[in-house]
Formats: sequence, structure tokens, C-alpha cells
Amino acid sequence: MKRIKLTVAYDGTRYNGWQLQPGVPTVEGELNKALCALTGEKIAVIGASRTDAGVHALGNVAVFDTCSPIPPERFSYALNTLLPKDVVVMASEKADPGFHPRHCDTVKTYEYRYDNAPFPNPLMSRYAWHIRHPMDLEAMDRAARCLVGEHDFKSFCCVRSQAETTVRTIYSIGLEKCQEGHIALRVRGNGFLYNMVRIIAGTLAQVGTGLRTPQSVEEALLAADRTKAGLTAPPHGLRLLEIQYRDA
Amino acid sequence: MKRIKLTVAYDGTRYNGWQLQPGVPTVEGELNKALCALTGEKIAVIGASRTDAGVHALGNVAVFDTCSPIPPERFSYALNTLLPKDVVVMASEKADPGFHPRHCDTVKTYEYRYDNAPFPNPLMSRYAWHIRHPMDLEAMDRAARCLVGEHDFKSFCCVRSQAETTVRTIYSIGLEKCQEGHIALRVRGNGFLYNMVRIIAGTLAQVGTGLRTPQSVEEALLAADRTKAGLTAPPHGLRLLEIQYRDA
Repeated sequence: MKRIKLTVAYDGTRYNGWQLQPGVPTVEGELNKALCALTGEKIAVIGASRTDAGVHALGNVAVFDTCSPIPPERFSYALNTLLPKDVVVMASEKADPGFHPRHCDTVKTYEYRYDNAPFPNPLMSRYAWHIRHPMDLEAMDRAARCLVGEHDFKSFCCVRSQAETTVRTIYSIGLEKCQEGHIALRVRGNGFLYNMVRIIAGTLAQVGTGLRTPQSVEEALLAADRTKAGLTAPPHGLRLLEIQYRDA
Repeated sequence: MKRIKLTVAYDGTRYNGWQLQPGVPTVEGELNKALCALTGEKIAVIGASRTDAGVHALGNVAVFDTCSPIPPERFSYALNTLLPKDVVVMASEKADPGFHPRHCDTVKTYEYRYDNAPFPNPLMSRYAWHIRHPMDLEAMDRAARCLVGEHDFKSFCCVRSQAETTVRTIYSIGLEKCQEGHIALRVRGNGFLYNMVRIIAGTLAQVGTGLRTPQSVEEALLAADRTKAGLTAPPHGLRLLEIQYRDA
């Protein structure tokens, strides 16, 4: 028996999110199906980040145990022949038997993309939130700064969340005008609450388009009240870029 | 009666190319349908570049004549409410009555995207050609240089082409490793033969992966023989970026 770690990329458009649900396509469901077909074992992966419906990923992580003789680094090749085209295992490797992708000290990096132009770029519409009104990046940047550090992010968390604590640490937030024409918001942190990056992205978009002041974002943070932050940005602009394991 | 110029962007995935064909979806067909619905007139646009099935565009150009009282710059807004989501009019403006998008002195810019990694990035698979074998950009760059200037591009033209002359001028070819992770081949020229950019992209990919030498590309050019150049790269990696009109 050995434990295998997969790095998984997917276009979330077609999926009801990561987490297995009966009767609807999920990324976890596709991985389990491919692993069972490949090994003949009944395998259920454990995912690091249960991304929402419509959210994309380049570097989500999943682990599973298997008795298969397939060498760890060959699982990616074998699984990619069985998976649908919009789910790709970018790497597979052996993990410590005690490695659990959610109980580790991690740094996660998310990117949120805005397509900020009078009309939506059709080559970007699957992967960016179109905002017609010109955004003031400088104001967004000022607003974002107050979020860096260890804070209670209760205001930036879906009220349906069942997290024990709403304290998280954001290591960095950066905004960039990209070659492609979109604006990328990149957030690195030690963990994110349910909808947290999307609420940050939605709130900053409101700052950018002048619907709220940069100062109001700090006030929302201090209020620890979801109604003080802004709207939840749509899922398709979000992608999980990377999960780094510091103690693995 | 006035002449209107449209700048048109589209995701070519769903279309049988630009040019109108009965019974299949085409970009030209969608534009004509939307214009007729909007104006009540029987309008057939004239396109600048008849892109192939599956090829994308950010800046193709189309013109039409109309008696509609809609102000020229408002056509984009009105058409975008009628067009499918994957065809977007990025700008509309008044053109000279004598302006014809294909009989002008133009500079066209195309971009071809390679996703060069062991496994395809699922967020790129609609818009880039996946090549697993590591590509040697330096060799590709050396090979590309011989194509710059005025040449007979007969070797880089689909044999079914009916062009009167196969002489064209390429102003520049550049290769770039992009932030996103893909490699972009950008070609600017005064006009392109049928499949010319895709044959260049396919031939350079063969150079990049070591299947042919940079020197062989110059030999192919001089031979004026289609069989001496390389394969035609698949359409989905190609996008028409821009058409500049120098005498308009």
C-alpha cells in the first residue's frame, strides 16, 4: 500500500465543483472513476481544496492509497488517458503515508481575473469576469493592502460557512494588468474561508468602479460582519493556481 | 446610405470559419442575421479576413452599407445584444463609402499559441496547440528569421489556394514565452496566403522539437514547393489579432 499525491488542473465550467455529489459531474467524481478503472480498486481521493462549481484550478492536490504496481510518477500518464479532456493530472508522485492534503501547513495561491473593457473579449469569457466600467487599480490596490496579515475574515466569508475560526493569514495580494488585456488579482494565504477570495474580488471590483471607497474595505474587515463587505464575484473568474506544502 | 466598419472578435471553436455557408454556423452568417434583425434591411457584410474553421479573432474587420438611423458607434452595443456570446463587435464606426476591407493596404497581425508542457493545460486547450516535447525557441527563432521580408511563399501555402501571386511580405516574426505558460508566435505581414500562418507555425514546431533543422526552413522557402515545408498546425492555436489599414 502506498500513498500517491496528484496535482490536478481543470476547467471548472462543466463541473458542479470539486466535491463528489451523486448524479452531477464533479472533479472528484471524475478522478475516482478514472482511478477505479485504472487500478480495479475502490478508490476515493482526498482533495486539498473543495473548489466551488465553475471555479478552475491549475494546481489542486489530491491523495489516495493504492496497492497498484503502477510507478507513482506514471499515474499522471495513465489517468490522463481515462479522464475527460477538461481534467488533467499535471503530476503524480509518492507521498508520505501520513500526508493529508488538508491537515498540512500550506500556502495557497488563487488568481481572480477581470476582463475590464467596454465589451467582453470572447476568448476570455470562460475565465474572466467582464466589468464594463473602467476600474481604478490604484484604489483597488489601496483597499487590498488592509487585508494582508492575520485577521478575522468573518466579513469575507459566506454566512453558510461552518469553519471553526474565521481567522486566516493573507501573505500577499497583488493586482496586475496582464499582456492578455485582463486584470489579475493574486492572493496568497495559509487558507481561505468559503467564498473568501470571491468576496474579496467582488468587493475590490466595487472599489475599482467607484461604488465604494478603499477605506470602506478596512471598515468591513473590522466589522466582522458579512453584510459590510461587497458582493461575491462570479466563480468563472477564479482559479486555484498552486498549493505549497511547507511541512511535507 | 452610409458605410459602417465593424471590429469583430470571436471564439472560432463553434464555427465553420468566417465565410457564409448554408446550413452551418459561420461568423459571417451570425453577423448578417443580427444586422438584418436590427435594421430590417437585407444586409451582407464584407469581411477582411476569411478565417478558417476553428480559428479565433480579436480584430477581424467587416463593413456593410445601411440606411439605418442608428449612429455608427452604437451598432456595436445594439449588435452585441443580438449576437451569440462567442461573437462580439468590439467597435463600430463610420467608414468612407469607398472603403473595402480587402482591397486596402493593410498590416495583419496573427498569433499562434503553443502549450509546450508534458500535459495540456485545460485552461488553454481551446486556444493553444499542445506539444509535449520541449521546444527549442532559439532554433525556432533562427528558422523564422529567413521568412521576414518579401518572398514567394508558395511552399507555405495550401495547394488548394487560388491566389494570383504567392508573393507576400512578412514585416516581423517573434516568439515569446508568455506569463501564462504558453509560447506565442506573432507574425505581422501585408497579407497571408491560405493556411500560411498555420504552415509556418507547424514547420517551426517541427524545428522546435528537432524534427527538422532551421536551415531546412530557408531551403523550403527557396524551393517554392509545398511539400518542402512542414505540417499545417491545427486551427485552434491561431488568432487574428489586428488589421491595420494604412490608407483608410
